[in-house]
Amino acid sequence: MIVLIKDHADPIQLENLISWLKGMGLDVHKSVGQTQTLLGLIGDTSTVDMDVIRSLDIVENVQRVQEPYKNANRKFHRDDTVVSCGGALIGGGHFLMIAGPCSVESEEQIIGVARRVKAAGAHLLRGGAFKPRTSPYAFQGLKAEGVRLLLEAKKEVGIPIITEIMDINHLPLFEDVDVIQVGARNMQNFELLRELGQIRKPILLKRGLANTIQEWLMSAEYIMAGGNSQVILCERGIRTFETATRNTLDISAVPVLRKLTHLPVVVDPSHATGHSYLVKSMALAGAVSGADGLMIEVHNDPPHALSDGAQSLTPDQFDDVAQAVRNVLPFACRGSEAL
Amino acid sequence: MIVLIKDHADPIQLENLISWLKGMGLDVHKSVGQTQTLLGLIGDTSTVDMDVIRSLDIVENVQRVQEPYKNANRKFHRDDTVVSCGGALIGGGHFLMIAGPCSVESEEQIIGVARRVKAAGAHLLRGGAFKPRTSPYAFQGLKAEGVRLLLEAKKEVGIPIITEIMDINHLPLFEDVDVIQVGARNMQNFELLRELGQIRKPILLKRGLANTIQEWLMSAEYIMAGGNSQVILCERGIRTFETATRNTLDISAVPVLRKLTHLPVVVDPSHATGHSYLVKSMALAGAVSGADGLMIEVHNDPPHALSDGAQSLTPDQFDDVAQAVRNVLPFACRGSEAL
Amino acid sequence: MIVLIKDHADPIQLENLISWLKGMGLDVHKSVGQTQTLLGLIGDTSTVDMDVIRSLDIVENVQRVQEPYKNANRKFHRDDTVVSCGGALIGGGHFLMIAGPCSVESEEQIIGVARRVKAAGAHLLRGGAFKPRTSPYAFQGLKAEGVRLLLEAKKEVGIPIITEIMDINHLPLFEDVDVIQVGARNMQNFELLRELGQIRKPILLKRGLANTIQEWLMSAEYIMAGGNSQVILCERGIRTFETATRNTLDISAVPVLRKLTHLPVVVDPSHATGHSYLVKSMALAGAVSGADGLMIEVHNDPPHALSDGAQSLTPDQFDDVAQAVRNVLPFACRGSEAL
Amino acid sequence: MIVLIKDHADPIQLENLISWLKGMGLDVHKSVGQTQTLLGLIGDTSTVDMDVIRSLDIVENVQRVQEPYKNANRKFHRDDTVVSCGGALIGGGHFLMIAGPCSVESEEQIIGVARRVKAAGAHLLRGGAFKPRTSPYAFQGLKAEGVRLLLEAKKEVGIPIITEIMDINHLPLFEDVDVIQVGARNMQNFELLRELGQIRKPILLKRGLANTIQEWLMSAEYIMAGGNSQVILCERGIRTFETATRNTLDISAVPVLRKLTHLPVVVDPSHATGHSYLVKSMALAGAVSGADGLMIEVHNDPPHALSDGAQSLTPDQFDDVAQAVRNVLPFACRGSEAL
Repeated sequence: MIVLIKDHADPIQLENLISWLKGMGLDVHKSVGQTQTLLGLIGDTSTVDMDVIRSLDIVENVQRVQEPYKNANRKFHRDDTVVSCGGALIGGGHFLMIAGPCSVESEEQIIGVARRVKAAGAHLLRGGAFKPRTSPYAFQGLKAEGVRLLLEAKKEVGIPIITEIMDINHLPLFEDVDVIQVGARNMQNFELLRELGQIRKPILLKRGLANTIQEWLMSAEYIMAGGNSQVILCERGIRTFETATRNTLDISAVPVLRKLTHLPVVVDPSHATGHSYLVKSMALAGAVSGADGLMIEVHNDPPHALSDGAQSLTPDQFDDVAQAVRNVLPFACRGSEAL
Repeated sequence: MIVLIKDHADPIQLENLISWLKGMGLDVHKSVGQTQTLLGLIGDTSTVDMDVIRSLDIVENVQRVQEPYKNANRKFHRDDTVVSCGGALIGGGHFLMIAGPCSVESEEQIIGVARRVKAAGAHLLRGGAFKPRTSPYAFQGLKAEGVRLLLEAKKEVGIPIITEIMDINHLPLFEDVDVIQVGARNMQNFELLRELGQIRKPILLKRGLANTIQEWLMSAEYIMAGGNSQVILCERGIRTFETATRNTLDISAVPVLRKLTHLPVVVDPSHATGHSYLVKSMALAGAVSGADGLMIEVHNDPPHALSDGAQSLTPDQFDDVAQAVRNVLPFACRGSEAL
Repeated sequence: MIVLIKDHADPIQLENLISWLKGMGLDVHKSVGQTQTLLGLIGDTSTVDMDVIRSLDIVENVQRVQEPYKNANRKFHRDDTVVSCGGALIGGGHFLMIAGPCSVESEEQIIGVARRVKAAGAHLLRGGAFKPRTSPYAFQGLKAEGVRLLLEAKKEVGIPIITEIMDINHLPLFEDVDVIQVGARNMQNFELLRELGQIRKPILLKRGLANTIQEWLMSAEYIMAGGNSQVILCERGIRTFETATRNTLDISAVPVLRKLTHLPVVVDPSHATGHSYLVKSMALAGAVSGADGLMIEVHNDPPHALSDGAQSLTPDQFDDVAQAVRNVLPFACRGSEAL
Repeated sequence: MIVLIKDHADPIQLENLISWLKGMGLDVHKSVGQTQTLLGLIGDTSTVDMDVIRSLDIVENVQRVQEPYKNANRKFHRDDTVVSCGGALIGGGHFLMIAGPCSVESEEQIIGVARRVKAAGAHLLRGGAFKPRTSPYAFQGLKAEGVRLLLEAKKEVGIPIITEIMDINHLPLFEDVDVIQVGARNMQNFELLRELGQIRKPILLKRGLANTIQEWLMSAEYIMAGGNSQVILCERGIRTFETATRNTLDISAVPVLRKLTHLPVVVDPSHATGHSYLVKSMALAGAVSGADGLMIEVHNDPPHALSDGAQSLTPDQFDDVAQAVRNVLPFACRGSEAL
């Protein structure tokens, strides 16, 4: 961490600051120039509150040069983390395909989709029971009944399941759920993250729609600091000025994360783009960029003409995408190669 | 709502769609051109799920021309809403000054600041007890003890209080709090919003760091749909590419909101800019733009040299800003004048 | 185009507006509801100035449902455009690899790099002669001498060349240059675009750092409206809030463009990410997403220890990336498949 | 400037780097910690190319702590720059009101508007002759004839004029123009900026739609490095995710600029917001935030019913806004007060 001292700073205040920093166990190196003084802080600065230092009268600026996260940091944990999702592995060379409908709608639907995506090679069934919706008037999911139907599908089809949690009070409903998803809007719901650090179940943490990679890793750190090291990161597009796609899929986040962290990374091309015609190309892009998995929306055959062309892929389209992904996986950027 | 139909759409599917829309109580006007067909939907479209329509095979695009919120909409509620914050009014010409420290630190601190900001003209005391922090290693607030100290200050100094809620399970602690704040990171914590719709206490809803004005009003709508109409909106800066300020204060949101909604609007120049030297100018800008109130960080006289120049204003600086704001208020843009 | 009329609009003004629109050759369909009136405009609206209509007293909003560009529009030109870059083809299934240094530095350097990238399979040599730099104090390129050295390399090595133009007055220098590049900062330098529409040479048009896909296509339209149909689009990252990469590479722009336009699309992973360790993964992502080409920075073997690890790829690294790209190309999303 | 060295860097390369930096006249302070080494560079780093240093093998990161601009820097030029715009002053306490139509349309129009805005207190007449338009099919301005009409208005009404340049080849047409405007899309047209550094006439430099304050000052530096110190900065809104306004007016840029530079700053509420109903509130916000001037679109009385409610202000509305601005100016944040 670098502290830039203001011109004409009071020398006594400066000495006070240096003593205080040393008291935190840091080495402090002072560089005095004609017009500027810098302090270089060496040591474990992950618990130093930059804002407090920046607020001091004699400080012009503070810059962090070391990552403020530890548990999630590849520097302190060189090997890829491998997470078991109800038996299906992700990370360290294991590729995980997650597929299923946006919302669980009925037993028939979820079991039908489960059979098809499992046959196509998916390892984990997704399905929303609690749905975060911008409008209070939009369908909010089947809630507890949705979770129950997912568990039916799990038993019936023999595929582990993932579904989203929106409130820690619902946790008892998730006992037999294999992976718990934290949605983009809750990426900085710190109370929820902290509680999920207390359990021993994999958490798939979606990136917030306008959160930096560093903030995302800090949210993973919240979970890991509680002792739950089974965190999977999911890139699902960020908010930009572009309106041709729902969000802008930040594919470069995949190799950046591979460098910064040992946690597995999943790409969700469906939510990122918002258009089914973009899913295949973005699934392939995610796979070759070195992602450890994909999360793709697949909807059962639509029952009537009206929902003929759902935004989700049909099971047939998913068959095609899953095969295309398997074709490119041997050529994907992976491991030290990307570094 | 406008539905643009794809070229060469199946006429039977088109008729099915029109029947379905009419079944929702909408008037459907079909415009057939040489290369394009449009459907104009007239009626209450606030409960129509655009995504479902957009997902149909025969639909190229859907555009909403009417706002998807009702309770918060000025079209259906012409008069400004006036909210009583423990006796202090905001909205409809009543200007509310909120001031206090970022975090409650001690009884002496919070009572000291409370006295000073009340003397300077503040109507409501702010102070964080539960603090959302990006890092799990940063100070997380005094929590329940912080709320207790705020209540002490309220009793001792005679000023109503506002503090942030991070988890609905903490609600019992807020019984004597006058206004409950929902922070930017929880603006789309829909479970929390829904629960706050069930109580009868003013809610100050901060704008999410990358949320549109429409999404913000939809979150207000969540609270109002539950029956709690006492919502105050707080602009606190949005995330952009600019790094000279912590966020970019979107002052134009104030007159935009005045047009779209009857709810009162507060500007927070402290969190928006992140620098004390920018607070006065942005407080004045907020006041003249027609805001109904300001929320300003004020910290007590720092006890030792180290926190000499806190980012917050000192009580003396706040005296100056409060007076400057009073000077410009008579010249502020207000009411129909801004329209 | 849809025009939403304000409540209680003056009926005479409304009739005037409708007559005026019909006078522009448009069919106007009026939909009258209880609280809203809509006009649906059918016909060629590409030359209608939305801002003029939006500015009218009786108009609440205007929304375009048809693209405002024609020459670049795939709807009016179904087949992929194939552009010859000094003999090397791009588009319609032809993949083009562009490589070379950021700046031309010396004859030895540019000829050395040219030989290596040609041997590795590059079809076009890039090299900056006129360099747009944020700072007036940074190296601005060798200018005319740089172009001369590129032409030397072209003759010596037998590879066509591309270099950037910054001022139309420099055009005479580009007579023997095979492809002219317009940089991101000049994407909306309309005077330059218009002049480039008058020549008959391929133009590689980089996306502006904060320009939408539609604005980008409008800039292509400027060139094409002048009669020059040989336009190649180059995605090079957009500006977002994320700072881990120089820009955010918008890979989804590739399939979006494939749907909207017949023009070939190139991806530049070097400028987009700003880090050599990200080039390979993003090159692969671009290739599988359906791009028609890649543009990659390659620098000759650094002459001394100091520039040991240039941000550009070394020729050896480029050999590896070029081979990896060839491996995935057979599996790339292309043509109607992406639609 | 701070250089963070990678773990396990080759000590010989490190010594080479230090020698090279010292050779550039910098003091280099090395801080060696257990896991990290930092170099603090003290001296004039404004001409150091950060990208070159960052590209070195042994370097993990580089951070600038000093501004890379000199001529525009308040640290080296404490007093406000005052610019004479054809006799009307701006800066150093002089407030300048610029008003006029977006485009010059006819002699009658421009003279009519000129009379009205002069009567209302405007000091400088604006009017577009060369218009940058996203679409090649939109009205591109009257060009040379537009400049001629502005000069007519100048002579007839006795008010200095400002108009935009789009191509340096047009410079001879601007001989009698008092202030030359560089539009947002040309903020980084470095060839144009460099040429404008060679003349001795005030330049109003608009902020690019996605450019940081620092990049904006670097563009001012291009002009000033050529010897033309009469630069006026104009904030006109930045591109964000919000769509309720055309751009997001970054009012906080005003006090930030006041701290960083001695150049005068103008706010353009018309282009920033894109809606006439927002102009008054944002004009007031700009004035109280400490801007040195405003630039407001005013259109003559519309000739027929159709353009009844133009986006620009009518002359009557401008009378009102100009008076409102004069009312708040005595209370504006200015000079050291904002610091």
